[in-house]
Amino acid sequence: MKLDLDSDKAGFQERPITRHQGAQARSLVDAVVEEVPVALVFNGLSHAVMMVTPRDLQPFAMGFALTEGLVAKASDIFDIEVREHARSFELDITIATGDFVQLKQQRRSMAGRSGCGVCGVESLALLDLQPERIVAAPLHADGGMQPAIAIAVSQLGQYQDLMRATGGVHAAAWCDASGNVLRVCEDVGRHNALDKLIGHLALEGVDMQRGFVFMSSRASYELVRKAARMHIPMLATISAPSTLAIDIAIEAGIKLVSFCRQDGCVEYT
Amino acid sequence: MKLDLDSDKAGFQERPITRHQGAQARSLVDAVVEEVPVALVFNGLSHAVMMVTPRDLQPFAMGFALTEGLVAKASDIFDIEVREHARSFELDITIATGDFVQLKQQRRSMAGRSGCGVCGVESLALLDLQPERIVAAPLHADGGMQPAIAIAVSQLGQYQDLMRATGGVHAAAWCDASGNVLRVCEDVGRHNALDKLIGHLALEGVDMQRGFVFMSSRASYELVRKAARMHIPMLATISAPSTLAIDIAIEAGIKLVSFCRQDGCVEYT
Repeated sequence: MKLDLDSDKAGFQERPITRHQGAQARSLVDAVVEEVPVALVFNGLSHAVMMVTPRDLQPFAMGFALTEGLVAKASDIFDIEVREHARSFELDITIATGDFVQLKQQRRSMAGRSGCGVCGVESLALLDLQPERIVAAPLHADGGMQPAIAIAVSQLGQYQDLMRATGGVHAAAWCDASGNVLRVCEDVGRHNALDKLIGHLALEGVDMQRGFVFMSSRASYELVRKAARMHIPMLATISAPSTLAIDIAIEAGIKLVSFCRQDGCVEYT
Repeated sequence: MKLDLDSDKAGFQERPITRHQGAQARSLVDAVVEEVPVALVFNGLSHAVMMVTPRDLQPFAMGFALTEGLVAKASDIFDIEVREHARSFELDITIATGDFVQLKQQRRSMAGRSGCGVCGVESLALLDLQPERIVAAPLHADGGMQPAIAIAVSQLGQYQDLMRATGGVHAAAWCDASGNVLRVCEDVGRHNALDKLIGHLALEGVDMQRGFVFMSSRASYELVRKAARMHIPMLATISAPSTLAIDIAIEAGIKLVSFCRQDGCVEYT
């Protein structure tokens, strides 16, 4: 099989940011990890779409096929072609006939979709990357965001019971516009933590346009998409965002703020 | 709708561990976050299985239905019943007829499965939670593991290019039995990073029974399952494991080691 590893991308893009440090705000450029839909197509049959950093795509296809049990051995993969589209990739994988027959049988007994972004979506055409614009008004006037984030950061820890006990979970917090933490949900999956939080807010009839979500995790695509569906005006995260999270936030009109600390944060603009 | 939040579990379980600290090893009990398959069933139709921490399950069902756009508004959800099985949960969700008609139409155009654990698997019956036992011999004699992990920990950072540039990615490293890092792949998804790594090893014909995988992330179910398929004898992670990761590792005969630091680690036994 011809490997074309040099065609792989760096895996990150430079994006304009505003770095808030206390009362100061500076416009800079920063490197952001790429998150791109990658369709895995076996012998012409679209099998799954994964959100992937576009680097090592041929090895990714090989590893996915092996670890998901789609082929019996590496030599059953005859070819992997990488096709680059405008905002996505397609991996065309040619596998042995015996494996393909089994794959088609397996697929017949499965159907469904997942909650973590695009997992379970079969083809690129089914992706929902165009969120509607949220109707919520901006939460903060100039200069009001950074103090709110400082308060949220200072309060979150006391609500992370499961994290203290186990060290292994994400937290999703609902904060009022001033940054006071009103409710926290924890889960092994960050998207689950957010779903639990939003479920509580919905059950209580909370107006989700009047506060923000603060996550202990990274900002990935599916968190922004979920927040957009609820018209939540701002998503703040402790760790880094992905390129697609930034793109979707901008399209939806959600303010995205990452690397949140008591003395600063990074806004994607 | 009747909410039954008190029936929710603590979200963690106590498990026996061996804490290695330098040359010392102590047997203890530690709290481990629960990761459990949860089936989401809408009006009797199995829709998705998610790996979830079993706490706030009714709000989770509500949030999932809303943020995935399966119902138009919270009041379209009439009832959520939590059914506990031996090793899983089922959430029986009753939604408005209009939403259900749309859901069934949407499903007809989707089929597939994902690479991140069980996402995309439609029903609990399709879950693959019984890995075959690996055939690899143990990698280390007594006392040999901790020095190898110390070496892997000390070497990993220099290979994390994308992490240094962006702060937002997981790393999967392949190490020889002594802990020397031989190859590293990075990705926004930890399961993708592992798939890329295994793809490279397979392409190079590396014997995966003679080394171990070291991940910068948590140890969740799908990483252990993927490692088991390749008969990799040991999985080491920097962050915490879940209960299901431990269970699957024990069933497959994989040594699972988490909280890896230069001076210590935790083994699940």
